[in-house]
Amino acid sequence: MRGAVLYAPGDVRVEERQDPRILTPTDAIIRLSATCICGSDLWPYRGLEAVDGPAPMGHEYAGIVQEVGSQVRNIRPGQFVVGSFFASDNTCEICQAGYQTSCVHREPIGAGGAQAQSLHVPLADGTLVATPDLPPDDLIPSLLAASDVLGTGWFGAVAAEAGPHKTVAVVGDGAVGLLAVLAASQLGAERIIAMSRHQPRQRLATEFGATDIVTERGDAGVARIKELTGGLGAHSVIEAVGTQESMLQAIGSTRPGGHVGYVGVAHGVELPGDELFFSHVHLHGGPAPVRRFLPELIDLIWNRRIDPGKVFDLSLPLEQAGEGYQAMDERRAIKTLLRP
Amino acid sequence: MRGAVLYAPGDVRVEERQDPRILTPTDAIIRLSATCICGSDLWPYRGLEAVDGPAPMGHEYAGIVQEVGSQVRNIRPGQFVVGSFFASDNTCEICQAGYQTSCVHREPIGAGGAQAQSLHVPLADGTLVATPDLPPDDLIPSLLAASDVLGTGWFGAVAAEAGPHKTVAVVGDGAVGLLAVLAASQLGAERIIAMSRHQPRQRLATEFGATDIVTERGDAGVARIKELTGGLGAHSVIEAVGTQESMLQAIGSTRPGGHVGYVGVAHGVELPGDELFFSHVHLHGGPAPVRRFLPELIDLIWNRRIDPGKVFDLSLPLEQAGEGYQAMDERRAIKTLLRP
Repeated sequence: MRGAVLYAPGDVRVEERQDPRILTPTDAIIRLSATCICGSDLWPYRGLEAVDGPAPMGHEYAGIVQEVGSQVRNIRPGQFVVGSFFASDNTCEICQAGYQTSCVHREPIGAGGAQAQSLHVPLADGTLVATPDLPPDDLIPSLLAASDVLGTGWFGAVAAEAGPHKTVAVVGDGAVGLLAVLAASQLGAERIIAMSRHQPRQRLATEFGATDIVTERGDAGVARIKELTGGLGAHSVIEAVGTQESMLQAIGSTRPGGHVGYVGVAHGVELPGDELFFSHVHLHGGPAPVRRFLPELIDLIWNRRIDPGKVFDLSLPLEQAGEGYQAMDERRAIKTLLRP
Repeated sequence: MRGAVLYAPGDVRVEERQDPRILTPTDAIIRLSATCICGSDLWPYRGLEAVDGPAPMGHEYAGIVQEVGSQVRNIRPGQFVVGSFFASDNTCEICQAGYQTSCVHREPIGAGGAQAQSLHVPLADGTLVATPDLPPDDLIPSLLAASDVLGTGWFGAVAAEAGPHKTVAVVGDGAVGLLAVLAASQLGAERIIAMSRHQPRQRLATEFGATDIVTERGDAGVARIKELTGGLGAHSVIEAVGTQESMLQAIGSTRPGGHVGYVGVAHGVELPGDELFFSHVHLHGGPAPVRRFLPELIDLIWNRRIDPGKVFDLSLPLEQAGEGYQAMDERRAIKTLLRP
């Protein structure tokens, strides 16, 4: 099969790779209908995260089950399924509490590389969620979004306790931040402030439910959020970047007693304990347990109540993955969908 | 009046100070029935926190109202009252959300120094809570404890979401940690693990409701908590020290999706973002909004359902405040009560 491999910063190649196969009786093999490039893939692409030799890329996927191991009970060949970037048994105490990305048996999906034609998924019964039927083509981008970027934005909004009567601010206008806006809107937030200085992203944020746009960043961004909230700060702030500046911007924008939901993968972040202490915020986040939300998200998409696939503003054949990375790196594209 | 003043690390003197007086119409003056020394007073006493000239010490207080300003409505001279270390209006949006220590009009009590015979309290109506009647002498230590150390331990337990069916671990065996054990027990926790290597403190922890004692610290402490919790970690961990080691011990001891409540005043803490991200914990804490809990705590004490005054294992006349500091510094005493 064909698959994308990162050889060095800026050097993504699509090449022939071994077809995945069932390794243990709980596995499944999926023929991918669509895959995509994640903001977190840009860390190694930009050389900001080391890779150890040629690395198969990608961890977002949706497609049709080809084969299952002998112990798989709930997933059948022919089903259209969506899964998350960590395989999970969905039965352990941690999964049952809704933290499937910390499942005691978790396995990263990334190892196999989902930017490919087929994918090996461990723990198929715990990991995959099937749609009610084979989806029409136009729903596939949104179903693919549920695999990570929507689920991650959604977790950010849940972790930030976005909801009715709340003012929510979103730090980061990447696909996750934009879908965090959509999530906050679906969760009933009264006011949603998107922090963005890029017009196409501002437009999408507004379409997804943002009521206010703030273009300032850092301390100026914090000051603007305070100004918009009677000097107090937002009730809920979603952090969707993962840098020191964005974390401090999120914490500073939150009122005492408010909630920060952070889903940007932390890179070089050191939180000053005294600042955090006196901020009085709740802080929660980490790798989004997308599996917790998948049934609900698939249902919302299936019934056309949300259209998260709009974050894909570039769609390319898998063979052009390199161009997809470049477009996201240069912020010409919000998110690239790849057709295997 | 007489009051304790810190001149330099290790140098606390009790000397004649000006009597406090009403400065604004919302103030009250209290004649203290009892005051005490806080673990946080040891930071400047040990030279680990700078003081700017001779500093009146103390911020924990209970006593009888002597005088009130012309705009005070709910507090009357002659009442026995307890208040917290920050004055708060108890009416602003932040107070109403239960974060009185971040009140938009908050004022520190510490400025006047509560280790004295009398105390000036701003925003009396919002800050002070009166007991149903004048208390018998034997209840005074427990009512004094409500002013900070009990309220702080209680907030730690609430922030850690201690409750039924939960395993709670407490990092720190100072008075706050011990009263966090009591709080977790009152909140219905199933299992309470106190981390302590000092026998008298272990005994008191057990008396307050601890079911297990762990003597290991740091990584070994984390490993022991995991061992006691099926490899997962505690549901709720209360941090009551404020150092880098204790924060990481608390975070490491918490299961994914669990809650850390941190109330030790952070000194030199820098939280590594990636460790926090992948820990998947909820983190909440800061200066305890004791005012939120005072009515409930006073009621529990008044009806003799809890006896937090037991943390005072040394009681001295105010004149011997210096000896009280020394005993706590050398860990000969858990907490020193001072009789003005």
